[in-house]
Order: sequence, then structure tokens, then C-alpha cells
Amino acid sequence: MHFKLIFRIIAVLLLIVAFFMVFPILFAFRFRELEIISSFLIPMAIACVSAVLILFLCKNPVRRINTRDGFLLVTASWLAASLVGSLPFFISGAIPRFTDAFFETMSGYSTTGASILTNIEVLPKSLLFWRSLTHWLGGMGIVVLTAAVLPLLGIGAYQLIKAEAPGPTLDKITPKIARTAKYLWAIYLFFTVAETIFLMAGGMDLFDALTHTFGTLATGGFSPKAASVGHYNSTYIDVVITVFMVIAGMNFAVYFWIATGNIRRILSNVEMRVYIAIFVVATLVIALSLFKQTYGSFSTSLRYAGFQTATILTTTGYVTADYETWPELARALLFGLMFVGGCSGSTGGGIKVIRLLTMVKLAVSEMRFLAHPKGVFSVTIGKHPVERDMVYTVAAFFFLYISMLLIITIIVASSGSNILTSFSAAAVTLGNIGPGFGQVGPTGNYAHFPAYVKWVLSFAMLAGRLELYTVLVLFRPKVWRS
Amino acid sequence: MHFKLIFRIIAVLLLIVAFFMVFPILFAFRFRELEIISSFLIPMAIACVSAVLILFLCKNPVRRINTRDGFLLVTASWLAASLVGSLPFFISGAIPRFTDAFFETMSGYSTTGASILTNIEVLPKSLLFWRSLTHWLGGMGIVVLTAAVLPLLGIGAYQLIKAEAPGPTLDKITPKIARTAKYLWAIYLFFTVAETIFLMAGGMDLFDALTHTFGTLATGGFSPKAASVGHYNSTYIDVVITVFMVIAGMNFAVYFWIATGNIRRILSNVEMRVYIAIFVVATLVIALSLFKQTYGSFSTSLRYAGFQTATILTTTGYVTADYETWPELARALLFGLMFVGGCSGSTGGGIKVIRLLTMVKLAVSEMRFLAHPKGVFSVTIGKHPVERDMVYTVAAFFFLYISMLLIITIIVASSGSNILTSFSAAAVTLGNIGPGFGQVGPTGNYAHFPAYVKWVLSFAMLAGRLELYTVLVLFRPKVWRS
Repeated sequence: MHFKLIFRIIAVLLLIVAFFMVFPILFAFRFRELEIISSFLIPMAIACVSAVLILFLCKNPVRRINTRDGFLLVTASWLAASLVGSLPFFISGAIPRFTDAFFETMSGYSTTGASILTNIEVLPKSLLFWRSLTHWLGGMGIVVLTAAVLPLLGIGAYQLIKAEAPGPTLDKITPKIARTAKYLWAIYLFFTVAETIFLMAGGMDLFDALTHTFGTLATGGFSPKAASVGHYNSTYIDVVITVFMVIAGMNFAVYFWIATGNIRRILSNVEMRVYIAIFVVATLVIALSLFKQTYGSFSTSLRYAGFQTATILTTTGYVTADYETWPELARALLFGLMFVGGCSGSTGGGIKVIRLLTMVKLAVSEMRFLAHPKGVFSVTIGKHPVERDMVYTVAAFFFLYISMLLIITIIVASSGSNILTSFSAAAVTLGNIGPGFGQVGPTGNYAHFPAYVKWVLSFAMLAGRLELYTVLVLFRPKVWRS
Repeated sequence: MHFKLIFRIIAVLLLIVAFFMVFPILFAFRFRELEIISSFLIPMAIACVSAVLILFLCKNPVRRINTRDGFLLVTASWLAASLVGSLPFFISGAIPRFTDAFFETMSGYSTTGASILTNIEVLPKSLLFWRSLTHWLGGMGIVVLTAAVLPLLGIGAYQLIKAEAPGPTLDKITPKIARTAKYLWAIYLFFTVAETIFLMAGGMDLFDALTHTFGTLATGGFSPKAASVGHYNSTYIDVVITVFMVIAGMNFAVYFWIATGNIRRILSNVEMRVYIAIFVVATLVIALSLFKQTYGSFSTSLRYAGFQTATILTTTGYVTADYETWPELARALLFGLMFVGGCSGSTGGGIKVIRLLTMVKLAVSEMRFLAHPKGVFSVTIGKHPVERDMVYTVAAFFFLYISMLLIITIIVASSGSNILTSFSAAAVTLGNIGPGFGQVGPTGNYAHFPAYVKWVLSFAMLAGRLELYTVLVLFRPKVWRS
């Protein structure tokens, strides 16, 4: 392990986090919440002093990073960012317990959107802004951000970003990784501005528009309103957020190809087509079920079905309706969508469409093989054969995901929560979704869990966001030996 | 497809099923249920006439079978046996609807033990005997039975038994497959006699002892008592059945090695060791949780914990306690055990320990590979490397299993059942377990589901018992083209 280099990069990351605390301070001035400003200044000072100390103590690092360093660096970066990020909540007293403050911040960065707050709207607006801003920072990846900002010291940046980027494959949209990181953030910024404008056109003020945009594009789900997006009760706002959720769940490389006119490459993207198909079919079935049993009007059913399908599929977590009261078919479909997630290279979490597609192809190829044992085994997606090693990685991921789901369910249940609550709490934290079923449903929250469950769920959110391996690899003792 | 040969083998199977109906008739005489005898004689006549007709019409078949024929033959055999087997219930009027009679019979053969009966004890005892006997026939495999009886016409019997035998690998305990089939049935018979004697020593009469033995050794779970094994409220009987359930969940090849003194081979069986470890650890944790919160006495807690752990782990489905009222940790552990199942080569269902072990090894090897990308990829269990193709098959099976679970959950939910009921109904039919949670919990049953759900669950039981591939392969149109 090259600790010196790892510490130096974390120092830069701390400076970036400190820098972004300037924005909630601006809102504190605007909303006259002057008493809250010190709660931001203290963590900023801590971050800056730590960074300077690290840069002073860890001089002359090696200038190359290996894979194992990458795993440690990324995991440590997320922990450091969450620690510093939780301080404003804790210092201000808005969240009196540190466990809760850390849970809320990890939920923010990991774009989960699970909250321990029981009364959101009493919090100072500047704190709510910071809460949503952690989504936005975590959505595209704080290490990717660091890579975009830093010349990256000539280290193995691709390995690094691979350890953080969502999805089993990273589309190298440009050969240079620092440039790719910059393009990704540029696309992200573009959609941020666009959605903010659309939401303001629908009557939101800048604060509401920005916070909801952060939660949408990062597929996060924190809303400054207790009733989430349902607060506005506006078809226009529902549609705008639904569209941007679906956009955020797609591979961002698609938008790069759109920008460069590479349309053929988009149309041949099987994952995107399957993702859209899942969204459309699930929305229609749920809408039909709601039309028959709940709302009576098909357009209303479609609006609520589309929003809730998008929110669970893309792992965002906003809600406009209490789906706990919906027909069982609609609920079970949303339950099933919790196992899907967004596309690779999107800000969405979950297992991801490309992995499920790979597993489906593996199963089909297996059946062909069984019926014709002399055939040649191959897994192809679109026209591209998938390498054997990649199929193994995906299969192992799928198994690890389901195993962790069951283990976390048992741990949550040990605190006395019923099976549905425990299982869905595990599924929505690991999948970075946010609201689930039972006590963690759309009208519930995570406040009532004992501290050890909150730490385990925080771990699940981190492991889910970093796609399991990055975090789990660090639990193998061998990794720590040179 | 070689239909002539397939039909001829099914004809033999029908004769075997007809033969076994002699036993419930004996019990009908003994219990003076003479009015019920015709309900057995009619299906016997139908089976015999059909068999003779088939043997007359399908003369001069080819004498070799290929893999695809094997899949069709096994699936068709199970359907034929279930059709004929359901007639006594239907003709006697004990189960007035054919859907229910078929469901109950498929549940019997597939050793699931899920019942649509709301008042078991009012049924004639001879019918209850037949109900339990279907477990016993299905447990070791009706096609394996046919293979043991028939000289098998020189066909590819290994392929056939592979399509029915439980577990990804079939231990060829002898080079000749017909002899292997005979040994397996001999071991099965030995344990049947042994358990029957043990149960009668505990005060059961022959009828109760035989029916409960059938349900135990087949890991079935049908009991002629409404309160299942809990009816006897006897520590001795609980312990005997717990022990025999654990025996039934082990690879039967182990007993062949014991009989031939091959002890070293048993000790090196990693799957068996992991299976025992899971049983012991789950029992202890559940017992501790029950001791603290439910029973107050540790020995009582251990007795109930051991029985319920064995019943779910081995996919039997007997109950001695309503675990729906247990602490959430205990419930969640039983929920988790639903995803495990017995050993390969046992009569237990579920995913099976060997497959989970393979997936765990794959995940570990994957993490090693990620940290040291230049290492050589390999999956080994014990000292034996697992072939790449086998890892693929197991991974695809695991994915298919979870996918079918979610799809069946959604179908069950479409009838208005809540998520926990729907999910556990799917899990316990696919895993051939029997009782689940919610409305299909230990005190519930399957009567209230609409007909289409019962057919889908019957399909799940069949697909689960035949380990998915055998049934699913037949849905590929290509399989049907020569």
C-alpha cells in the first residue's frame, strides 16, 4: 500500500469538500440563518488544517498507484468526505447524535436518500441545501471529481475511477481519463442547469429547484419537503422530475455520443433499450392496476405510476404517492424493480441493467448448452461477445449482492423489525434507493433503528455505491500485506 | 425427439404408480373405508389401460435417448404421475376441484408439502396415506425408480437420471447407473424402515409412523395431523424426526460410502461439513433468541429451534411451533435458510449447499483476482478444482432461481396477496419447502389462492424439484426442432 500518496489525494478531496460548503453558507446569508454559519466554518477549518498537515507530512510519495491502493483510496475518500460532511448537522445540533448525522451524510453522498429525520422542514434551509448537495457531489463520484480537478500526479487514474464508477464496464469516452472525468462532470452540470430552469419555470424558487435537481440527477432522493415531490402536487413538476430521473439512470456516455453526433452507437446500446423497455412496461402495468383499483382516471394513474416506477428503477427515492396503499400487484412490481437499478455509467445504483442482461444471456446460453452439449459456449450482448472473465465478475457480483441482502436483513431483524421492513431496509440501502416497504416505506423513516443497525445500513449504502468489490476487497487480510 | 421411446417409458412409470396404489387400498380395508376403494381402482385401471395402449401403439422405438429426450421424458413423467396421482382425491370428492387435487399431488411428488386442505383430519385415512406416499415416491425420484426397475432398454440412463437427480453433480457411486439407482433406493428403504421403527417405539401406530416417515425422508412435510408433528407434543418424536430430516438432507452417496467403509471420502466432503455447520449455527442462534424472548427454558428452545431449522433447511416443512410468533431474528434466520436447501444428491430441494459453496468460492476468487489481476483464476472446493463450465451452470442456476422467485412473487401478488405472502409462497414452492410466512405460514394454507395462482405454484414446485433447467429448457422452441 502506498499510504503517502493515498493520504495526499484524500487531502485534496477534503479541500474540495470544504470548498463546496461555501454554497450552503451563501444560502445561510440569504435566509438569515447566521447562527448556522459557524457549523460550516468549523468543518471547513478542520478539513483545511487536516489537508495542510497531510500534505506537509506525506511528502515525496511514489507517483504510481496500484489496484489495491485504488480500493483503499476510494473507500477512505468516501469515509473522509462523510465524516467531514456530517459535521455541520452534528455541530449545529440539528441532528444531535453523531450516528444519525453520519447515516444521513452517507445516505447523501451514496445517493441513497434514506433519512433519519422525522421532521425535515424544521431544519435550517442552509443545512437542507448541504444535505442535497452531498447527493450531487456523490452522484457523479467524488473521486471522479478529484480526477477532473487534479492533474492526478500521473497515477493510474483509470483504475481509480473504475473503483468508483458505477457499472461493470467504464466506457472510455475519451482515451485520457482526466478528460473523460471532465466531460462527465460537464454533462452533469449541463443537466443540472437544465432541470433547475425547468423546475423554476414550474413555479419553484431557486432553493427548491436546486435541491430537487441535485436529488434527481444524482438519483438521490433527499427533498427539503416532508411530503417529498408530492408536496407540490403539480403534474408539470412530476413529469419534469420523472423525465430527468430517467435521464439520470442512463449511461452518461450516451449523452457524450449525442453531443458528438454518434447516433448509431446510441441505437446499438442494448442496455439502454432494455432499461427504457423495463420503465415503459412497468409503468403501464402499474398504471392499469391503479386505474382499475385506485385512481379511476388513467392519466392520473399514469402520472403516479410513471413517477414511482422511475423513482425505484433509477434508485432515486422521491415519492409523490404512498405506494404502501397501492394494489398488491403494483407494490410487488415496485418490489421487483428494487432488484434492477439504473444503467452502467449512470448515477443510479442497484444491480444495474447490464449485469442482469449479462446473467439473462448466461442463463439462455446455458440452456442452449444443455440441449446441445457439443455447441460452443458464448455470451453476447448486442453484437459484442462478453469476455468469460467479465461473466464471472458479474455472476459473483450478483451472488454477493443477494448474500449481503440476506445477511443485512438478518442483522436488521435482530433489532426486532419485521421481515418486510428488514428485507426492504437492506434492499434499499444496498441499492441506494431510499424508501422501501413497511416501517421504511414512503411515509416512514430510519430514525427508530438502534445505532448498530444504522452503522450496518451506512456500510450497506457505501458498499452499494462502490459496487461491493471496492469495499469488500479491503476485508481480505491478504490485501494489506505487501 | 424420440417420442415412441418416451411414451413407452412413461407407460412403465404409469404401471409403477398404479402398483403403489395397492398400499392405500390395504389401509382402506384396515380402516373400513370401503367406499373409497373405487377411487383408487379407477385411476389404476386408467393407468393400466393407457400403459397397455401405449405399449401396443409405440412399438419398435429407437433404443437410444439423447439429452433433449431426457428433459422431455422426465418432465412428462412427472406430469403423468401427478395427473394419475391426483385422481383418487378428485374422484372420491375429498378434494372437489381438480386444480386443488393436482396442486396437492404435485406438492406431494415434488416433496413440497404445501397443502390446499383446510381440515386435514376429516379425510379418509387411505387418502392421507396416498398423499404421504406421493412424497416417498417423488423423494428419490420416480424416474430413478423406473431406472432401478427397468433394464432401461440400453438407453442413455445417466443423462436421464441427471435430469431428475437433485444437485449439479451426480456422484456415480457405481459405474452402472441402473445399479446406482438400485443402491440409492436400497438406502432409502433402509432409512424408511429404521425411522418407522423409531417412531413406533415412541408410541405412534403404523399408519402415523409410515406417513411421517415418508414426509421426513422425502423432505416432504405432509402430515395426516392438522397440527403437523406438533400434534404429538413429544420431545422424543421431535428429536427422531429432526435427526432423520438432517439425514435426508445429506448426499445419499455418503451412506453408500459408510456402508462400504470409505470413511476418508466422507470426511473430505466439504458440502456435508458446511451443511452440518449451517444447521448447528442456525439452531444455536435461534435457540438463544427463543430462550431470551419466548420459552425461558434452553432445552425447550433448543428442541423447537432444532426442529424448525431442520424443517426449513432441509426443505421438509413439518412444524412443531408457530414460528410466525417467534422473535424477528429467529424468523429472519428461517427466512434466510429458505435460500439454502439440502445437499446435492439428497432428497432436499432449494438452491442446495454445493451451489452456494461454489458461488462463495467464485466471489472469493473474484476478489483475489481484483486485488491481483495477474493471478490465475480458479475455483476449488475441498481439494477439487471446479470446472469452469460447472461454475457457469451454477451461476446461471442461481440467477434463474432468484429471477423465477421475483416473477412468481409478482404473479401471486396480482391476486391481491401481500408481498410477504407472495414472496414466501414463491420461495417455498420453488424450494419445495411447504410452509412460509404470512398467509402461507405454519398455520396457514394455500386454499385461498385463485386457480391461476395454484397452477403457477404447481409449475414452480415441478420446476424447483427438477432443478429448473429440465423444465425450462422445454420452453425453448429450438429444442423441439430436430
